[in-house]
Amino acid sequence: MYQFQCDYNEGAHPRIMERLIETNLEQTVGYGEDHYCAAAREAVRKAVGREDVDVHFLVGGTQANATVISSILRPYQGVLCATTGHINVHETGAIEHSGHKVLALEAEDGLLSAESIREAVLLHYAEDGPEHMVQPGMVYISFSSEVGTIYSLAQLKAISEVCHEYGLPLFIDGARMGYGLASEGCNVTLADIAALADVFYLGGTKQGALFGEAVVIVNDSLKRDFRYFIKQNGGMLAKGRLLGIQFLTLFEDGLYFQLSEHAVSQAMRIRDAFESKGFGFLVQSPSNQQFPILDNATMERLSSDFLFSFWQKIDDTHTAVRFCTSWATKPEAVDALIAAI
Amino acid sequence: MYQFQCDYNEGAHPRIMERLIETNLEQTVGYGEDHYCAAAREAVRKAVGREDVDVHFLVGGTQANATVISSILRPYQGVLCATTGHINVHETGAIEHSGHKVLALEAEDGLLSAESIREAVLLHYAEDGPEHMVQPGMVYISFSSEVGTIYSLAQLKAISEVCHEYGLPLFIDGARMGYGLASEGCNVTLADIAALADVFYLGGTKQGALFGEAVVIVNDSLKRDFRYFIKQNGGMLAKGRLLGIQFLTLFEDGLYFQLSEHAVSQAMRIRDAFESKGFGFLVQSPSNQQFPILDNATMERLSSDFLFSFWQKIDDTHTAVRFCTSWATKPEAVDALIAAI
Amino acid sequence: MYQFQCDYNEGAHPRIMERLIETNLEQTVGYGEDHYCAAAREAVRKAVGREDVDVHFLVGGTQANATVISSILRPYQGVLCATTGHINVHETGAIEHSGHKVLALEAEDGLLSAESIREAVLLHYAEDGPEHMVQPGMVYISFSSEVGTIYSLAQLKAISEVCHEYGLPLFIDGARMGYGLASEGCNVTLADIAALADVFYLGGTKQGALFGEAVVIVNDSLKRDFRYFIKQNGGMLAKGRLLGIQFLTLFEDGLYFQLSEHAVSQAMRIRDAFESKGFGFLVQSPSNQQFPILDNATMERLSSDFLFSFWQKIDDTHTAVRFCTSWATKPEAVDALIAAI
Amino acid sequence: MYQFQCDYNEGAHPRIMERLIETNLEQTVGYGEDHYCAAAREAVRKAVGREDVDVHFLVGGTQANATVISSILRPYQGVLCATTGHINVHETGAIEHSGHKVLALEAEDGLLSAESIREAVLLHYAEDGPEHMVQPGMVYISFSSEVGTIYSLAQLKAISEVCHEYGLPLFIDGARMGYGLASEGCNVTLADIAALADVFYLGGTKQGALFGEAVVIVNDSLKRDFRYFIKQNGGMLAKGRLLGIQFLTLFEDGLYFQLSEHAVSQAMRIRDAFESKGFGFLVQSPSNQQFPILDNATMERLSSDFLFSFWQKIDDTHTAVRFCTSWATKPEAVDALIAAI
Repeated sequence: MYQFQCDYNEGAHPRIMERLIETNLEQTVGYGEDHYCAAAREAVRKAVGREDVDVHFLVGGTQANATVISSILRPYQGVLCATTGHINVHETGAIEHSGHKVLALEAEDGLLSAESIREAVLLHYAEDGPEHMVQPGMVYISFSSEVGTIYSLAQLKAISEVCHEYGLPLFIDGARMGYGLASEGCNVTLADIAALADVFYLGGTKQGALFGEAVVIVNDSLKRDFRYFIKQNGGMLAKGRLLGIQFLTLFEDGLYFQLSEHAVSQAMRIRDAFESKGFGFLVQSPSNQQFPILDNATMERLSSDFLFSFWQKIDDTHTAVRFCTSWATKPEAVDALIAAI
Repeated sequence: MYQFQCDYNEGAHPRIMERLIETNLEQTVGYGEDHYCAAAREAVRKAVGREDVDVHFLVGGTQANATVISSILRPYQGVLCATTGHINVHETGAIEHSGHKVLALEAEDGLLSAESIREAVLLHYAEDGPEHMVQPGMVYISFSSEVGTIYSLAQLKAISEVCHEYGLPLFIDGARMGYGLASEGCNVTLADIAALADVFYLGGTKQGALFGEAVVIVNDSLKRDFRYFIKQNGGMLAKGRLLGIQFLTLFEDGLYFQLSEHAVSQAMRIRDAFESKGFGFLVQSPSNQQFPILDNATMERLSSDFLFSFWQKIDDTHTAVRFCTSWATKPEAVDALIAAI
Repeated sequence: MYQFQCDYNEGAHPRIMERLIETNLEQTVGYGEDHYCAAAREAVRKAVGREDVDVHFLVGGTQANATVISSILRPYQGVLCATTGHINVHETGAIEHSGHKVLALEAEDGLLSAESIREAVLLHYAEDGPEHMVQPGMVYISFSSEVGTIYSLAQLKAISEVCHEYGLPLFIDGARMGYGLASEGCNVTLADIAALADVFYLGGTKQGALFGEAVVIVNDSLKRDFRYFIKQNGGMLAKGRLLGIQFLTLFEDGLYFQLSEHAVSQAMRIRDAFESKGFGFLVQSPSNQQFPILDNATMERLSSDFLFSFWQKIDDTHTAVRFCTSWATKPEAVDALIAAI
Repeated sequence: MYQFQCDYNEGAHPRIMERLIETNLEQTVGYGEDHYCAAAREAVRKAVGREDVDVHFLVGGTQANATVISSILRPYQGVLCATTGHINVHETGAIEHSGHKVLALEAEDGLLSAESIREAVLLHYAEDGPEHMVQPGMVYISFSSEVGTIYSLAQLKAISEVCHEYGLPLFIDGARMGYGLASEGCNVTLADIAALADVFYLGGTKQGALFGEAVVIVNDSLKRDFRYFIKQNGGMLAKGRLLGIQFLTLFEDGLYFQLSEHAVSQAMRIRDAFESKGFGFLVQSPSNQQFPILDNATMERLSSDFLFSFWQKIDDTHTAVRFCTSWATKPEAVDALIAAI
């Protein structure tokens, strides 16, 4: 049985595991103040192309989202996001648990538009008595999005501009940042992300690490006391060096980007195979997640040898499903899938 | 200038004011444990037709909603409600502030359907891994709704049944309960409300009192320690007897219902006047709020003598506006408005 | 039975009631944006002696405390306060409900010292890894305190200085501000309060109003969007003018201060009576709350004609109790009490 | 430089690392639903001696504490704990962040007494109007405590009894459970813990794992929907099998207990060395944390070759410090320390 149901089926890239073994009995201080974390911060800064950013390592994505958002918003503010945004649907209300409304906006193919952000803000202030409503306080987008799509550089710039115009920090959830940057036709670089976002993170969990997300704070005014937020939200790993070692390995010589390219190229093979057989797609995704629409017979047939995710019922005889590739996807597994298609 | 922009423009019914004057220098204990509150509780129980309900007096609606919802939900649960629900739009995220997501469902004319509740619940549990999503934990509806509409008895029964089927307490926001019950064609009684809801409240602020909402807890399992919730949410009035005196006056001999009928009958006169002149309505409302669609010229003309609320832009030349009546609306004001129409 | 158990046994001063009657059927806009509130804000500014302060009217003290504190602290910060502080003991955890720890410090006679604030701050930052602990983010004191005592001007200045030194906004709970300022030997004026505090409030509930607290924000950086906080915390009264009318009456010509003086002078009579009979006191209070220590026989004897509060058991045969006076205390009631003593 | 400053200086026990390597590229489902987690749950149940307990794996201690406490308390309730309790001092207010007050009680040597719990509960209900105060809703204790001490079986039974008497679930923080159970003179077994607590956890982070805490829910009424709580609090690891593999290795054949004994025996050597040289201790600890009181000269001398923690200043010339041992402490390091003492 080959597993394509998500991008966190395996452990970590072997080089990470080796490094963890090598350093296992070394003694270091805790909570991210060790020399591996320091080196990893430097490696991330280099990859981002800026020395002036703060870098913090957290364990997981839900934690990273809740911690960052909690650090930005005032109590009466909410976060603008696509209705499909991860924080709106798949985090058990972690944002609301910290007191904030997720202000969900309709979005096409998982991508928020600058225009919809502007409208939401104008609508808020047009109201007679805006203080009766939750004030938009920041914007959350995902890169790549929850359905594999990516923003063009022009779209990102437009979003960033409207955010600046209205004083809304822009936060980019990068659980799949590498896969997004490596996606087909992407004209956005990590330097662009750092230039346009106020805060973003580089996902490790889905991109070669055992776990971990590297939060990068670009905007100076959002840097203060962030470690208090990490601790309060349960995200400060005692043996912080585990995160440092992983991100150092991923970023010191470009491994992160190589792994991302591998995953996307395997996904493109899957896409092409479905396409060539005439299958349609729920959404045109250029990255590591593919959403073909299968007839029931095909779905059943493929299920016997491959694990993939149910995504959305289309009609009585068709279903959109998800196939994910990752850094760990074996070309032979994709070969087998293509053969079956 | 006649004011029709909301239903809380004036103070309180004169009988309430007299009672407050008469009792002003009497000494009583605080926090709702005085004899006026006791008598008011009895009067409300009588009006509701049940001796086994708990009655608590709170100062305002946002407070009542946040307090009740906070007392029902567990931290990972959310409240199902119409997208137009007051808690979803006009309470500055008070529900989220207490940690809970408002699970907004599309609704027609401000009314939630039993079917949409069922779908939301089924969708939640159909998910592979429902624990990644906020669990529906209760249902909130308004009677009358935020756009003046009311549920029929059949609709309410259907909602109550689906709530019982899935173990979801049903909470009815009754900020305009009297106006709802007195509305044209209403086949629901207060006894029905008490039979079908787990908790509801009888609004005072918009219905003849200076302020105050009487929360009625029907479901035994929701009664425990409710006073702690009131205090924690800042809703425990030190001079609680002020609430007792007001609700006693409203409920001891049916004043609440008489005032409601007055408001609705004046609203029907306004509706008929617009209708007879060929104006359309945003929604067919049988209660004290009316939403005619005005052309710009009419809107401007009426504005010079009457205050009413902007509600929604329909197109470049038409706007839906809101006219409210209340217990205090003078027939002569309505006469003037009708003449102007 | 004469009631001395608290200072909110009665309704409101007759002049307030008259004003409410006079204005009862006037139509105004809601939520504190009416002309009475505007006039009341001006009257408060005049009393405070500063035109540059923001004034907001809330319904009650717990609400005012939770709203102000929530508007000042960041999520990982706590509020320094005396262990006896109202927010620490008698508000059902409203502060914690909004996410913040109350950092309680030992205090003598209900009064926090500048030195204990400094120590708490230094202790926090001395820690290796302060981010593992709640950061002190502001200071809360009460004037007069929960046990009737007051800060001298020198004490207040010292507290204010240490607050400025460490960037901690100083918030003064003034539920009994008038009684504090009118207390025997007080060398603090309302202008001093406004000069030394960042935010404070003038209590109405215990000082002649039916209810209401006037929050005064002095520090510009704390003024932004405060109305959102009021609404979110359930403190925005629909018929806001009720608060405006009350505070206008109390402050337009000094009534607030006259009523305070009355209460304190009656309390001093009670104090002197106990003192002259050789009774000791739990604490030397110069304001409207007195805490004599009674032997059991006296306590029982007085109970038959007077209501007062149990405060603290001293030993098997003695108990500290509380007698409160207020704006409404009748001299004859005090005469009767003195006779009984 | 030998490090004794905490018990999480190293990675994980080599058998855990081997297992992680072996399984690294295996594909499994996520979020703790894989077969390793299932096997680890069984191993924990066996170690605990009960088949009827629920076992959940979380990443860290602060997270585990906040998640468990959030799952037990109603919004107006607080958690009784020693003033020295980890949740009261070193978790940046994570408990308050979830809305609850930590009701800190004075405790001797880090141990809460049954009597102090009873007093706190009685004091709460003795109050006239207990709803103005936070209601005690559960009890939190640590085993071993934050200062290395342990409860005797009699003490634990007394606490459990008073908890049952007043309906307060008992939660035991077992970040150092193994070290506690292995401590000198301990007459408590893991079976006792499971019989007396409603919920507890077995710490992995400090006891041989890279990270991880195994929460064991004994009380049936606390089991429902716990996975929602884990997810909402950011504690659901995507690659959950990492936790499963670690706890399986620790518990399948008693490794956890062997490692604990090793750490305690090394700590006893350190204790004896200090004792034999006439040093006093801040507290008599029978477990892996030792708190000798050093004169300044000795402190400085030892600092040149050993890392240990500052704990508390005793007087101008003496300081209490902390030396920790762990599963990874090398006897040679202890030899060196003893020689230096």
